[in-house]
Amino acid sequence: MALKGNCLIAQSGGPTAVINNSISGLVKEAGRYSQITTVYGALFGIKGVLDEHLIDLGQESRHTIEGLRYTPGAALGSCRYKLKTDDYEKLLDIFKKQNIRYFFYVGGNDSMDTANKISNMAAESGYEMRVVGVPKTVDNDLPLTDHSPGYGSAAKYIATVVKETGLDLQGIVASSDIAILEVMGRNAGWLTAAAALAKQSANEAPHLIYLPEVPFNKEQFVNDVIKVYDKLGYCYVVASEGLVDKDGNYLASEKATDAFGHAKLGNGLANTLKDLITEKVNVKVRCNILGTSQRSAMHHASKTDAAEAYRVGMEAVKLAVRGLSGVMMAMERDDYPNYRSRVGYVDLALVANVEKKMPLNMINEEKNYVTYEFVRYAQPLIEGEVAVPMHKGVPAYVTLEGYKRMHTLSRRKPAS
Amino acid sequence: MALKGNCLIAQSGGPTAVINNSISGLVKEAGRYSQITTVYGALFGIKGVLDEHLIDLGQESRHTIEGLRYTPGAALGSCRYKLKTDDYEKLLDIFKKQNIRYFFYVGGNDSMDTANKISNMAAESGYEMRVVGVPKTVDNDLPLTDHSPGYGSAAKYIATVVKETGLDLQGIVASSDIAILEVMGRNAGWLTAAAALAKQSANEAPHLIYLPEVPFNKEQFVNDVIKVYDKLGYCYVVASEGLVDKDGNYLASEKATDAFGHAKLGNGLANTLKDLITEKVNVKVRCNILGTSQRSAMHHASKTDAAEAYRVGMEAVKLAVRGLSGVMMAMERDDYPNYRSRVGYVDLALVANVEKKMPLNMINEEKNYVTYEFVRYAQPLIEGEVAVPMHKGVPAYVTLEGYKRMHTLSRRKPAS
Repeated sequence: MALKGNCLIAQSGGPTAVINNSISGLVKEAGRYSQITTVYGALFGIKGVLDEHLIDLGQESRHTIEGLRYTPGAALGSCRYKLKTDDYEKLLDIFKKQNIRYFFYVGGNDSMDTANKISNMAAESGYEMRVVGVPKTVDNDLPLTDHSPGYGSAAKYIATVVKETGLDLQGIVASSDIAILEVMGRNAGWLTAAAALAKQSANEAPHLIYLPEVPFNKEQFVNDVIKVYDKLGYCYVVASEGLVDKDGNYLASEKATDAFGHAKLGNGLANTLKDLITEKVNVKVRCNILGTSQRSAMHHASKTDAAEAYRVGMEAVKLAVRGLSGVMMAMERDDYPNYRSRVGYVDLALVANVEKKMPLNMINEEKNYVTYEFVRYAQPLIEGEVAVPMHKGVPAYVTLEGYKRMHTLSRRKPAS
Repeated sequence: MALKGNCLIAQSGGPTAVINNSISGLVKEAGRYSQITTVYGALFGIKGVLDEHLIDLGQESRHTIEGLRYTPGAALGSCRYKLKTDDYEKLLDIFKKQNIRYFFYVGGNDSMDTANKISNMAAESGYEMRVVGVPKTVDNDLPLTDHSPGYGSAAKYIATVVKETGLDLQGIVASSDIAILEVMGRNAGWLTAAAALAKQSANEAPHLIYLPEVPFNKEQFVNDVIKVYDKLGYCYVVASEGLVDKDGNYLASEKATDAFGHAKLGNGLANTLKDLITEKVNVKVRCNILGTSQRSAMHHASKTDAAEAYRVGMEAVKLAVRGLSGVMMAMERDDYPNYRSRVGYVDLALVANVEKKMPLNMINEEKNYVTYEFVRYAQPLIEGEVAVPMHKGVPAYVTLEGYKRMHTLSRRKPAS
């Protein structure tokens, strides 16, 4: 029997360039079923549900919902909020009050844990509600899915920036000899590894890639850099922000000491690596730290990725309407004869709080680059470009009308 | 009477996304005149002339010369080398030996000084040679030209990144509250100011822009940030790497002290600003430091800029063939009814070593943003996108065959 009621969509965690593609797919598909009355969006994630900051996405224009397909950032607003025990009861009350029968949570590992708990709670209390997790993360660290929507676009941007800044380095060896690019990804090296997709000829950047899956060895690192530098006259290093030493401590948070023996705190990963090099050899080192541009560069997003993020949203609604709950959408792939993806699903309980790291067969023996296994895996995910409408020389992104009206409610307290 | 002989092209200083457009224009136009026998390119700037590392650009395929129009980085290689007194005599000998009668130097302020000296030296020694400077700089600090090729593309990339990372910040206020983007430009604020081109609605990023033309006031800065934060719940700051205090000292190189009173050296501009904020209020601050991607992002270059860089190269050859020497090409503009640019020229002696800073009418009264005067000036320069051919998901850039064969000659000494 069809479950009748309202639908609620929320986003969580760090955005990706294509996260709103999933929202667009969810809203469009949800609008096609008579059993779904109103399609709500929660402003600023699960926090917005608790605060009952809900907007009616059915009131948004077709132009805006379509525009989400080329708009980066979390259009509904996102949060990093760990639910407290009391919150769950409150959430259930709100779901009942608003007659939410379909709940779609777009997020990464933590969000899938939240979705799983909400799903269990509803079941235990006998409130019929379908909960489906929609994966998104530039880190690509969600398990049981071939890859996560959001990863391909970030990977494409990283690869292109490495190609371009690699040409810059190569053309001006007398000015900067070593380039270090610090890449996002927390404890998984997937996004850092994507730099390798830039390399299409022997001496081209990148030359060295350091991943958090492998304990970082300082001596080996400096030797690696000198070896490349002595051969080419320049060296392009790509390193994950999450590099750890053999004891599992983050390199970036290490208390390094400067030339005077004083502690330097919060030096950052790239600068830590820079110091290791310059303490040993007299070369110029330049750090590029792209920060949040890695997860928002819709102007150079992967068409494959954007299309998949959209499809995952649509399929989530189809599944929920068919009766499934407590699952996360997942990507499956065929590589023969050409890359092709299908949307499947996995049990939320198996996904929650599990990090998928890079397997060792994708890392070379010297632990300073990736193998062809990785390139074969990642290359199809960055194919194609998204057409973004431009206005006065910059992308013309959209904003939800409901967000414009309501977002001030979610303002935080003044700092002063 | 037509001056017969060979032509030499060299690049200098930091590259821009469109610097090779000028090379492409120079090579194509030079190939059209019977009085120019061979079109040489010097590898790695004036250093390559001294080392006689010259390649015959007439041997490059049409595909490669055309491909320079969408390839970033210095395709011939660049250098930062200040000529010594002895070098000038050596240069003149090489010009004579190679029968160089046309010399085109693509570069910024320092390069125009070099070109000027070479021009004077040739004239004094009675060696007939036409010397033309071709402007390029993302800093836009060359005088007597409305703007410099290279600026528009960097400005477009900065504006788009601010728009995108601004959406990221706005959508995830609970995670990062303040974003700081550090922008290139040395002592001129033009590129930093370009961030304002991202703003098309009231609350959108950027909110504050700090330029090196104005002495930086720490108290005022922290107050500015808190004021925006208290209103919106987030704040996007854009700051020039070249910010100075009231005594003219660079902020970035300041010896700040950490919580333990120890000196923190080489903290960088963005981190220096971050510390100023976090010492005063308890907010999260995230720094984005785009580094060399600012001057190499051909994947998002301005079509207007690329076309102008190409045209400037062509016009330089036309001028030289007509008999002019000792000049730098310059951009002139008409704004009515629509933006339109013309290529003119100015005396090299008037350009050499002069920095053009932002005029005060382009900076607001509070010294924390730009005025509409600036937006009106810069907006037309970022219009249009360059179509870049893609291969396997990343741009398919070209490399000069001569560079591939010869660049190893220009290798520097091993570090170890």
